Amino acid sequence: MTKNKRTLTDISEIGEFSLIDRLTSGFKNRNKKTIMGIGDDAAIIDTGEQYTIITKDLLSEGVHFDITYSPLKHLGYKAVTSNLSDIYAMNGTPTHIFAGIAVSSRFSLEALQEIYKGIELACEKYNVDLGGGDTVSSKAGLFISVTAMGSVAPEMVTYRSGAKEHDLICVSGNLGGAYAGLLILEREKQVFKANPDMQPSLKDYSYVLERQLKPEARKDIVELLKEKNIKPSSMIDVSDGLASEIMHICKNSDCGASIYEEKFPLDKMTADVAHEFKIDPSTFALNGGEDYELLFTISQNDYEKIKDQQEISIIGHITDKSSGAKLITVSGNEVELRAQGWDAFKKEENED
Amino acid sequence: MTKNKRTLTDISEIGEFSLIDRLTSGFKNRNKKTIMGIGDDAAIIDTGEQYTIITKDLLSEGVHFDITYSPLKHLGYKAVTSNLSDIYAMNGTPTHIFAGIAVSSRFSLEALQEIYKGIELACEKYNVDLGGGDTVSSKAGLFISVTAMGSVAPEMVTYRSGAKEHDLICVSGNLGGAYAGLLILEREKQVFKANPDMQPSLKDYSYVLERQLKPEARKDIVELLKEKNIKPSSMIDVSDGLASEIMHICKNSDCGASIYEEKFPLDKMTADVAHEFKIDPSTFALNGGEDYELLFTISQNDYEKIKDQQEISIIGHITDKSSGAKLITVSGNEVELRAQGWDAFKKEENED
Repeated sequence: MTKNKRTLTDISEIGEFSLIDRLTSGFKNRNKKTIMGIGDDAAIIDTGEQYTIITKDLLSEGVHFDITYSPLKHLGYKAVTSNLSDIYAMNGTPTHIFAGIAVSSRFSLEALQEIYKGIELACEKYNVDLGGGDTVSSKAGLFISVTAMGSVAPEMVTYRSGAKEHDLICVSGNLGGAYAGLLILEREKQVFKANPDMQPSLKDYSYVLERQLKPEARKDIVELLKEKNIKPSSMIDVSDGLASEIMHICKNSDCGASIYEEKFPLDKMTADVAHEFKIDPSTFALNGGEDYELLFTISQNDYEKIKDQQEISIIGHITDKSSGAKLITVSGNEVELRAQGWDAFKKEENED
Repeated sequence: MTKNKRTLTDISEIGEFSLIDRLTSGFKNRNKKTIMGIGDDAAIIDTGEQYTIITKDLLSEGVHFDITYSPLKHLGYKAVTSNLSDIYAMNGTPTHIFAGIAVSSRFSLEALQEIYKGIELACEKYNVDLGGGDTVSSKAGLFISVTAMGSVAPEMVTYRSGAKEHDLICVSGNLGGAYAGLLILEREKQVFKANPDMQPSLKDYSYVLERQLKPEARKDIVELLKEKNIKPSSMIDVSDGLASEIMHICKNSDCGASIYEEKFPLDKMTADVAHEFKIDPSTFALNGGEDYELLFTISQNDYEKIKDQQEISIIGHITDKSSGAKLITVSGNEVELRAQGWDAFKKEENED
């Protein structure tokens, strides 16, 4: 090996999306039935009358979750719902999940059963079947890998790529709550570490804690859109923060976007936590992540069908590509959107 | 919590299959399209004209592989082929894989690219598409999760459950080679640890090393069976050793089996390694694991079609349930089969 001393590239220097691009750019699709491979919330495979949707996630202890404050049952639940969210983002109906768990022997059977209880609860609530469950040993740490599968009629599938100029940009529910919950949990963990006799003061924060620890996937929104006979022109789930998701839509749809800060749906408790931490609440919405809401674009013709829906906010519109992705602040300034979203590789400060 | 002091159950006390049973026994299938959920090599979903087959695995560093001697490219290749093997075991054709990798920051971009090169090579060789690739951070250790998807005509799917009395028991290729390779690698690792100046002596063992480090899935056997117009009555892949797989077939098909030690297909190098380690070569075949050969049963009527196939050995026949699963030794003794197969949870000796 003459090149033994060449400089190697540190993965923490590369962003998550860029890393995946660099690793997978050489792959070719050989299969005519691959309608969408890498590059959207989930893959789409032509399986005849219905398309099959598949997505998978791998969650690492200490990076994606912290078991000092995540109840194991919630963790199992969230591992499922965060994947179902990707199926809904394709406008599909989830049908099956497959779970893989790696645990070290410090976990008891009872601890594993708690994780599976959470998985089961999510299966029940979202009417999906567990198609396979693999539990293996890990030398250190807990890892949960969930694959979700669903179906969608070929004419109903929504990609990140269909947004058209003048389309309205909509988002479900409210944003930033999961991040608010995370900040509270991290603060109370530090307090507890400094003084283990102190009881954490969590009771005033139940809504944002639930947003962080036991998020739901927006099955109801996909059903509502169907009922109202609306097919979004594009859709993505909000897992890395609004800014990052808007930029995905702009990139894949080859367009620009203007979103209005004053239109951001923020829950009161989320705003209160932001003020407590002296952070602008809009920052929570833009860069917080893990909200698992749906961000979608619709034709202006569909405006009347949606305007009175409490669970849907219209936050902006699609522009032409040359205008770029813009945030119009409450004070009327126009700033370019930047995705500072959640990047798992940046978080590893105490690693081997 | 009044029950805080109850005794918790150590997962290393429970076998792998029993653990999965205990974790998943409460799950109900809600979906009419779930033809086979947990309990076979892969799940089968009714997606219309063709059934969709799905399987997933999670591989942990230090448990399923050792990167001190597994080249990363081979590791990526094996992570794919070991999953494709489960698709072939359902008599299907794999079409897609989805990879999830968790790595700590000690890995460079170039190291990750090596893993993906192996994944790509396997995709090319087996004509499957990479439908999604998720790369996340791990606090410690490398974890690779692969989901494989395939398709099969409804009338062609083979389960573990269809074996009938008098059916012939067949196995592809040869057995025990992967375990022979593992023993050599472990021995040379110990030699190297004791004396790092020593070069490992691996050159005489290339076949068994390849069986361990870069196994193939038996695409050719599934194609051959189709060409010969044979539909096996049951099929399973040999990942945990012949004994364990025979017992799966007996349990799921509600039957017994007699297999003949003298019929075991053993490669000469595998037998040589066994002798070197003073172990009976048949033990390698029965309990070695990771061979990724196909074990299947066929009707006696199909005997003529298969009898001259070099890559297929007939090793026994199916009996009635009351006869149990039996090994007839070379010396003519009849002994009850026991699955001592590979159990990941038993291997954790140096754990946190």
